[in-house]
Amino acid sequence: MGKGILVVLSGPSGAGKGTICKAFLERNKSVRLSISCTTRAPREGEVDGVNYFFTEKEEFEKMIKEDKFLEYANVYGNFYGTPKSYVEETLNSGYDIILEIDTQGALNIKESFSDGVFIFVMPPSLDELKSRIIGRGTETEETLNKRFSSAADEIKLAEKYNYAVLNDTVENAVSKIESIITAEKCKINRIKDHMDVLQEV
Amino acid sequence: MGKGILVVLSGPSGAGKGTICKAFLERNKSVRLSISCTTRAPREGEVDGVNYFFTEKEEFEKMIKEDKFLEYANVYGNFYGTPKSYVEETLNSGYDIILEIDTQGALNIKESFSDGVFIFVMPPSLDELKSRIIGRGTETEETLNKRFSSAADEIKLAEKYNYAVLNDTVENAVSKIESIITAEKCKINRIKDHMDVLQEV
Repeated sequence: MGKGILVVLSGPSGAGKGTICKAFLERNKSVRLSISCTTRAPREGEVDGVNYFFTEKEEFEKMIKEDKFLEYANVYGNFYGTPKSYVEETLNSGYDIILEIDTQGALNIKESFSDGVFIFVMPPSLDELKSRIIGRGTETEETLNKRFSSAADEIKLAEKYNYAVLNDTVENAVSKIESIITAEKCKINRIKDHMDVLQEV
Repeated sequence: MGKGILVVLSGPSGAGKGTICKAFLERNKSVRLSISCTTRAPREGEVDGVNYFFTEKEEFEKMIKEDKFLEYANVYGNFYGTPKSYVEETLNSGYDIILEIDTQGALNIKESFSDGVFIFVMPPSLDELKSRIIGRGTETEETLNKRFSSAADEIKLAEKYNYAVLNDTVENAVSKIESIITAEKCKINRIKDHMDVLQEV
């Protein structure tokens, strides 16, 4: 058995990466979810240790100093970070991990983890993206405006990813992510060390 | 709609690429098969214009001079070649093409068509490979020995491909090839010119 694959699911807010990630995990029980630390307040329904590890700012800064994050970032005044040890241990045990993260975080991880699979979740259109952000109803007007203006810039970042998956329907997007993982496991550079027949020749 | 993808299915003789290609085409009706020209004699059941274009040596040499092949090769004393025009026209029309070919031919195509998807069909073991070649019963003893001795060398060529698919069962192998094609169509460098939302930003 080879090492697991780190799948980084990213995209602009409102693209639907959270919904897709949840639906993906329901259909792929053996894939582990990477849970991030954040200093932002929980949204309604969010559970500590499930959606995030909700962390006090002081504790978060201590973890930064101790180099315990794969990446961390300050987004709209809140810290977000991916704890390093969980990801590494899980991959070494042969399990795949999916990590849902904003574009800034994804590109930071890509610098240190180029072996990961970086998937950009693409909204069908900018209009659709805007209505999804409004529909969420959890943002102040100021935050909404900030997100609108950065959406277009974030979509341009897609070219830095390995794949883009159009979120036309959640089911289509999840199926494509499943295919991407299957294909990645067939990539010659991932299998050459543990395909039995290659050891015979 | 983007350009089609050229899928090159290759591997040592006896790996089962012919069976896999046939099963793949039955499940994927919109994918076109690339038909090669050959100067070798038809095997029992092979049909001209379906399995190969069976071509006289003189005609084949004329086509070489007129640069009408994507690749051609002399294998065990027979010529095999991939007609260029059919592949290019089909891809430009947006259809995918699958091409089943020996390792020598695949690597020749890779030099001029790096945009293709090169898949190596891997036998589960060398013993299994040998029994499949014997089981085919179409070879003389001399040809059999030639193929045995080159099988190991050919498997080492897998590292020059993009993907390797283990032929444990035909159904598993076909499913993996389908996933590879789906994933390739999500690759950012293939879609950036024709994903609508990318034109808006």
